[in-house]
Amino acid sequence: MTAAPNEHTMKHHRRPYADYAARTFLWQVSSDAKVATITLNRPDRKNPLTFDSYAELRDLFRGLVLATDIKVVVVTGAGGNFCSGGDVHEIIGPLTKMTMPELLDFTRMTGDLVKAMRACPQPIVAAVDGVCAGAGAMVALASDLRVGTPAARTAFLFTRVGLAGADMGACTLLPRMIGQGRASELLYTGRAMTADEGAQWGFFNSLHDSAGLLEAAQTLAAQLAAGPTFAHGMTKKLLHQEWNMGVDEAIEAEAEAQAICMQTRDFHRAYEAFVAKQKPVFEGD
Amino acid sequence: MTAAPNEHTMKHHRRPYADYAARTFLWQVSSDAKVATITLNRPDRKNPLTFDSYAELRDLFRGLVLATDIKVVVVTGAGGNFCSGGDVHEIIGPLTKMTMPELLDFTRMTGDLVKAMRACPQPIVAAVDGVCAGAGAMVALASDLRVGTPAARTAFLFTRVGLAGADMGACTLLPRMIGQGRASELLYTGRAMTADEGAQWGFFNSLHDSAGLLEAAQTLAAQLAAGPTFAHGMTKKLLHQEWNMGVDEAIEAEAEAQAICMQTRDFHRAYEAFVAKQKPVFEGD
Amino acid sequence: MTAAPNEHTMKHHRRPYADYAARTFLWQVSSDAKVATITLNRPDRKNPLTFDSYAELRDLFRGLVLATDIKVVVVTGAGGNFCSGGDVHEIIGPLTKMTMPELLDFTRMTGDLVKAMRACPQPIVAAVDGVCAGAGAMVALASDLRVGTPAARTAFLFTRVGLAGADMGACTLLPRMIGQGRASELLYTGRAMTADEGAQWGFFNSLHDSAGLLEAAQTLAAQLAAGPTFAHGMTKKLLHQEWNMGVDEAIEAEAEAQAICMQTRDFHRAYEAFVAKQKPVFEGD
Repeated sequence: MTAAPNEHTMKHHRRPYADYAARTFLWQVSSDAKVATITLNRPDRKNPLTFDSYAELRDLFRGLVLATDIKVVVVTGAGGNFCSGGDVHEIIGPLTKMTMPELLDFTRMTGDLVKAMRACPQPIVAAVDGVCAGAGAMVALASDLRVGTPAARTAFLFTRVGLAGADMGACTLLPRMIGQGRASELLYTGRAMTADEGAQWGFFNSLHDSAGLLEAAQTLAAQLAAGPTFAHGMTKKLLHQEWNMGVDEAIEAEAEAQAICMQTRDFHRAYEAFVAKQKPVFEGD
Repeated sequence: MTAAPNEHTMKHHRRPYADYAARTFLWQVSSDAKVATITLNRPDRKNPLTFDSYAELRDLFRGLVLATDIKVVVVTGAGGNFCSGGDVHEIIGPLTKMTMPELLDFTRMTGDLVKAMRACPQPIVAAVDGVCAGAGAMVALASDLRVGTPAARTAFLFTRVGLAGADMGACTLLPRMIGQGRASELLYTGRAMTADEGAQWGFFNSLHDSAGLLEAAQTLAAQLAAGPTFAHGMTKKLLHQEWNMGVDEAIEAEAEAQAICMQTRDFHRAYEAFVAKQKPVFEGD
Repeated sequence: MTAAPNEHTMKHHRRPYADYAARTFLWQVSSDAKVATITLNRPDRKNPLTFDSYAELRDLFRGLVLATDIKVVVVTGAGGNFCSGGDVHEIIGPLTKMTMPELLDFTRMTGDLVKAMRACPQPIVAAVDGVCAGAGAMVALASDLRVGTPAARTAFLFTRVGLAGADMGACTLLPRMIGQGRASELLYTGRAMTADEGAQWGFFNSLHDSAGLLEAAQTLAAQLAAGPTFAHGMTKKLLHQEWNMGVDEAIEAEAEAQAICMQTRDFHRAYEAFVAKQKPVFEGD
C-alpha cells in the first residue's frame, strides 16, 4: 500500500481550463470563466464528428472533472446545424474495412464520450438547431439539458446505415427521456423527431428562434453557474448513479449526498442570506 | 429457532387507526374509517415541515402497514397551500450547526418518510394547491396519485438553498414521473413547475378548482377504498419492487403476486357478481 | 463436454413460418413472407384470450426466434375490437377453483407470452381498435410499437375483477411507457385510457381511422421489414436487456452490439449505396 495522496497532491491535478487549446472544435469561455461553449465547426458538412473530434471531446470531458474554473458547458454547432453525426467518408467508410477489435475500439471510444459527459460534474446544455443526427443526436441526448429551435430535426438514424439503434447508450437514455414507445419508434425507423415533438415529449426543455438560441443556452448555463455548483455536481452524479438503483437504495444514497452538501459553505451562505433577506451569492464550495 | 408467530400473535400487532391522535397535523377519517386525510396545518407559514412533523409522519406511515381499517390516505395542506417544505428557522438554521452524524440523522429521517410512504399498502393521494415546495414537493411526489389546482406551484427548490437536487429520492422518483430531461431542469434550476406543466407531464393525474380539490381527492380515495384493497397493496408493492428489476424478473414477480390475489375472496366475489350480472362488493380480503 | 453444434446443426433448427398453421387465431403473411399478421378472431366476444390461445401465442413467439422468413409481426383483432382479455367464463371461472400450483401455472403462462414477445427478434406492431382490455391491453403493451384508432379504449382492468394491477409485467412496462403517475392511476383504478390520452402519453405511436388501421400497421411493418432486420433484432434485444442496467454498462453492451452489426453485410450495403448515391437494399444479414 502506498500512502494516500495528501491535499497538496490532489490539488496538483486540478487546473483551469479557460485556456484550453481546442484542435477539432471551437472553445470559448465566458468572462468569468465559468461557462465554456463548445462549437462543432465544420458548417459546410453540418459539423460531422471524426475520429479525432470524438477522441478530443472524450478527453476534454474526462479532463473537466478536475477543472478549477468551468462550472457549466454549452455544446452547439456552427452555421445553423448541430451535428450530422459520424462522417460517412471519414468514419463509415473506414469502419467497413476494420477487424472486430478495431471496430470495438471505435464503438467504445464513442461510448466513452457519453460516459465522460455523464461523469463530469458540470451540467451540459446542448443548443440544437437544424440537423441533429446519429452521434450528434447522442451528444444532445447525453447532455443534461437541451434547448432547440423550431427547425431542429433530431434523428437517431443508425438504422438507415444498416446498424442497430443501440449506439452510445441510446437504448437506455432515450426511453427515459421521451418514453419507451416513442423511443422504440425513433430507434427502429430512424425517422426525425420534429422540434415540436421534442418539446412535447420532454427531449427539449424549451424552444427558441435560431437567432436567440445560443444566448438562451448561455443564459441558462450562466444561471446554473451562479448556483451552488458543488451541489449541482452531486445532483448530476446521483441522477447517473440512481439509474438502476431501487427506490430505497436511492434514498439512502441521497441522504449521504445531501448531508455532504449541508456541510458546504454554499449551504451556510444561503441560510445567512435568507436571514438577512438578501439573495445568496454561491461560490461552489 | 423460536416458534413462528401464530395467527393470534400476528393479529395482536394489527389495530385500527381511526382514532389515531395526531400531534403535528390534522387526522380525519371517513365515516367508514377507510379513508384517512392528513392535513398539514400551519397555514400562516404555508404548512412547513418541522423535525417533529417529519418524525410523526414517518412513524404514522410505518404504523399504517398494520392498520385494520384505513385503506387509502389523502395528504393535503390547510389554507390554500400544500406545504412549503422544511422550515427555514426551525430546520435550516439548526442544520447549519450540526455535525455530520447529526446531519445524516436528519437526511435519513426525511428519506425514511418517503420509504414509509412507499412501503405502506395504502395508496396515497396528494391534494395539492398553491405552494408545494422542497420536502413538500417530495411528499407529493412520493404519493401514488396527485390531484392539483391551476394554482399549484411545485418546486424542487433544494438548489436555491445551496443543496443538491438529490433529496429524499428526488433523483430517482422525479425522472420516472415526468421524464429525465424535465426532471433534470427542475432539479438543477429549482424553478416551479406550473400546474399545466404538471398535468401535461404526468405529475398531476387531474386538476380541479380549489374549492373542489379536497372532495376530488377524497372521492378518488373512496373509489380505491371500495376496490380490492388487498390487491391494491400488492400493486403498490410491485410498482415499488420492480423499480430496478429486469422485465423477465418483474414478470415472474407478478406471476406470484397475481396467483396470491387469485386466492383472495375479492377475486371470487368479482367472479360471482359478474355471473349474477351484479356489481361486486369488495371487502379487502 | 460435447462438441459445439456445427453450422449445419444450427441451421437445422431454423425454418420458415409462412406456412404456420394457426389453430386459435388467424395467421396471414405478406407476399414476400416478411410480415406476418396475427388476428385474434372471435369478434362476437371481442376476441378474448383462452387457455389455448395464450399457449399457442406463447409457443408461436418462442418459435419465431428461429424463423427464416418473418421479420416483423402485426397483432390485431377482428371486428373492430383488439382483445377483451381473459375470457370470464373460460378463464376466470376455472381460476376460482384452482389450487395455488395450478394458479401459478396459469399466471406464468400469461407472463411467458410477454417474455416471448420481448425475446423474439421481430419487432411487433399492435393495431388497436375498440376494446383493448386486461390481458389484451398487456399484449398491446408488450408490443414494440402501437397504432390505434380514436375509438381505442385501453384498460388495465385487473382491479375490476378483484386482482392486482401486477399482471404479465404491467407494473414494469406501463410506467416506462407513459410515466409512473399515469400508470399508477390506470393500474389502481382500472379506468380506460382514451385514444387521445394514449397518443399524448406515448402509448400509441399514431392514430388512424378504423378503415385504415390495419394498412397503417402493415405499412409500418413493411417499412421495418425492408430495413436491416438483423440490426433491428439487436435493437430489440438491447432495449430489453438495458431495462435495469446502469448507463455505463448499457453503453458497453451497445459498443459490443454495434461492433457486431458493423460486420454485417447490411452495413456494407448501406455504405456502398451511399457512395453510389443510391438507396440501400437491406437483406437482413
